[in-house]
Amino acid sequence: MALDKVLDAIDRDLEKSLERLYALLRIPSVSTDPGFRDDCHKAADWLACELTALHFKADVRQTKGLPMVVGHSRPGKQPKKPHVLFYGHYDVQPPDPLDQWEMPPFEPRMADANGAKCIVARGSADDKGQLMTFLEACRAFITVEGDLPLPVTVLFEGEEETGSPSLKPFLDANKKELSADLAFVCDTDMWDVQTPAVTTMLRGLVMEEVFITGPNRDLHSGLFGGAAINPIRVLTHILADLHDDKGRITIPHFYDGADDLPAEIRAQWSSLGFNEQKFLSEFGLKRPAGEEGRSVLEQIWARPACDVNGIVGGYTGVGAKTVIPSKASAKVSFRIVGEQDPLKIQNAFRDFVKKRLPPDCTAEFQSHGASQALQLPLSSPYLTKALKALEEEWGKPAVLKGCGASIPIVGSFKRDLSMDSLLVGFGLDDDRIHSPNEKYNLSSFHKGTRSWARILAGLAT
Amino acid sequence: MALDKVLDAIDRDLEKSLERLYALLRIPSVSTDPGFRDDCHKAADWLACELTALHFKADVRQTKGLPMVVGHSRPGKQPKKPHVLFYGHYDVQPPDPLDQWEMPPFEPRMADANGAKCIVARGSADDKGQLMTFLEACRAFITVEGDLPLPVTVLFEGEEETGSPSLKPFLDANKKELSADLAFVCDTDMWDVQTPAVTTMLRGLVMEEVFITGPNRDLHSGLFGGAAINPIRVLTHILADLHDDKGRITIPHFYDGADDLPAEIRAQWSSLGFNEQKFLSEFGLKRPAGEEGRSVLEQIWARPACDVNGIVGGYTGVGAKTVIPSKASAKVSFRIVGEQDPLKIQNAFRDFVKKRLPPDCTAEFQSHGASQALQLPLSSPYLTKALKALEEEWGKPAVLKGCGASIPIVGSFKRDLSMDSLLVGFGLDDDRIHSPNEKYNLSSFHKGTRSWARILAGLAT
Repeated sequence: MALDKVLDAIDRDLEKSLERLYALLRIPSVSTDPGFRDDCHKAADWLACELTALHFKADVRQTKGLPMVVGHSRPGKQPKKPHVLFYGHYDVQPPDPLDQWEMPPFEPRMADANGAKCIVARGSADDKGQLMTFLEACRAFITVEGDLPLPVTVLFEGEEETGSPSLKPFLDANKKELSADLAFVCDTDMWDVQTPAVTTMLRGLVMEEVFITGPNRDLHSGLFGGAAINPIRVLTHILADLHDDKGRITIPHFYDGADDLPAEIRAQWSSLGFNEQKFLSEFGLKRPAGEEGRSVLEQIWARPACDVNGIVGGYTGVGAKTVIPSKASAKVSFRIVGEQDPLKIQNAFRDFVKKRLPPDCTAEFQSHGASQALQLPLSSPYLTKALKALEEEWGKPAVLKGCGASIPIVGSFKRDLSMDSLLVGFGLDDDRIHSPNEKYNLSSFHKGTRSWARILAGLAT
Repeated sequence: MALDKVLDAIDRDLEKSLERLYALLRIPSVSTDPGFRDDCHKAADWLACELTALHFKADVRQTKGLPMVVGHSRPGKQPKKPHVLFYGHYDVQPPDPLDQWEMPPFEPRMADANGAKCIVARGSADDKGQLMTFLEACRAFITVEGDLPLPVTVLFEGEEETGSPSLKPFLDANKKELSADLAFVCDTDMWDVQTPAVTTMLRGLVMEEVFITGPNRDLHSGLFGGAAINPIRVLTHILADLHDDKGRITIPHFYDGADDLPAEIRAQWSSLGFNEQKFLSEFGLKRPAGEEGRSVLEQIWARPACDVNGIVGGYTGVGAKTVIPSKASAKVSFRIVGEQDPLKIQNAFRDFVKKRLPPDCTAEFQSHGASQALQLPLSSPYLTKALKALEEEWGKPAVLKGCGASIPIVGSFKRDLSMDSLLVGFGLDDDRIHSPNEKYNLSSFHKGTRSWARILAGLAT
């Protein structure tokens, strides 16, 4: 069977694969620092070269910021095969603080960490190591078969670490060229060093700011305290009402569309042996603060949440000031799941606030964004095939993870290109991305490459 | 009767009294601006001179800041008469914004305002006009009788508008010299232009700051929202609990010592025709926010209150940040009345907070002060005599006012010199103190002087 030959080729070529990855890691493509602008361009050029060597029609496209690299696989004999878009980014975080690196950040080398061989360098896990797993899988197909099993477009950006300012204009301007049946996004983690994972749920986010006005000017709390309504008091009453004593959000109809987790996923998560106490103790906590009766993994991956991200009112300097302020405000965000409707939640929150206002207070609102949750349907045949491929490689089923935070690229692909994303990556919790001594396990790189080969082959069947 | 002659002398001398007041008002004794330091010294010297002319043994005493003026009336034939300490301040607020004055702020003149003759100048009401009413009353006694009816010590400071930094050390260092049977503080207002007032109740003040810590560092609200406790949520729940839906403070035993107003004062306040709606509408409000079933005057003068004077936590800049902060804090103050114990309230508040903390949050506290309410006992013979004197002058009973805010000098006299204060002043609501075009009604000055003459005579009987 051809796949076996491809996997053998990956194994045989490992040393050279690592040399190629090292070559990319040696380019200090720090996007946030203009001093490394030339290096960013160099990384883009290097990737376009590699793609060309893999028979892609590839080029570097200029933007107002750092360039994109786009490559299309050679049109082959793959009619009716799904067309995939692979996304990665070639830019890296600054390596600072430099004195905490055990070796220079742009001189990759193999080291032992926790008893495993690891590639240590800035960008090894985020995202150069990850994106190279895909390119090396493609290379093995080209070597063995002369062609890829399905049509592939590759998109690499160089501004992921700086908020991707050029991405949306680029997607808008190249909608037709970049649209595919499915996106692959590899910027994610495994469950643990032996267990692969697919991230299928990303929570959405509704961000509101509310400004409460009471008196028409700041008042002396001695002269008026007792008679004049204090907007901080009003605000704290409203915010305190948002959660009941079981950790549930009390806004009417808030949970509409937030369906319970399918039983098979709940069962899988229960079986993971996730240590809630250890997880919480890492940031000094003991007790999960979310809905009672839900596991921590459910609370952060699959259930909505509401947090006040900022609050301010009155005098906040050193010492005391006897003031009843005219205004108080809070930034309130909602993580939403499933089919929860971000605009309905925005309106329901505003109604919730207005309903609780005393007659002589007013509320103003500002939206800082409202996006729905993203979910790769569990019934998707792509997902089924990817899960099978991963299980074959790793010898155990992949975990169907959630991610409580948004991953902007996935939202962009959904909104701008109407494309679902398959999130498979081989990072690990302890990779120290964005920190000194970033690493990527050799097993992640090697078996990650083999995993992509299996996924590509699987999706082509 | 001698008092009549004294009052006649005041009437006859009015023009010259005004000239003397104008001379003091012409000295721009702005304490906060070092550029006016010499003028502050000049005002102190001027007052010491005036006191000497009134047979006081008077001098200017240097401090680390601006000087004090202390004068003692010549020991006379007044054995067993109560000894009073009269307090005032010769410093004034800066006149800015200058372009909003209809005339130069340090060139006093008589003008019409609301159909009444007024002395317009910076300091006319706060406090030079007020303190001169007392000196002119003394002058009339000296003129007519050659002596004062009781022993008087005078204390003028020059740092009232800058927080009186030198006052406490000065009182401490001169405790024996400055102690008297009663202090007169004239920095207060009448009820209205025809109705005198004595302020007999000053609310006390307990100022606490509470810091709630949840996670040991700021967390991403996407990755942890739902599982990690948010200290802003904890803080808002605690603060929201402080008031019930009838505006009462819910801390156990909080109201211990906050006795109901005596029936006669309640009756007097009800009869004043105070327009609550007008009062509230001046700062844009419609409904009193304090305890249900209490009048606004009770709420601000005679009932305790709790206000959050400041709150801050998380991200408070422009836009949004998806953070669960590690800490949130609030400055909470309590106005207290009657026999409420400030230290018991401080402790009760801290217990109230601690009792509501989730197991993995901690609270720290900082005190910004705790002082009891001050009250001139209604049974005080000084008060009875002062009320009689005021009624004789104004033809109607004086209002027994409260003051919701503390007046620092009154607290200092009580704490440092164990001395009650009689607060009588002739300012009016529309005097524009601290603002452009400050004024002092001629009737306040003239009848104020006569009032002091009557009070001095009354206390001497």
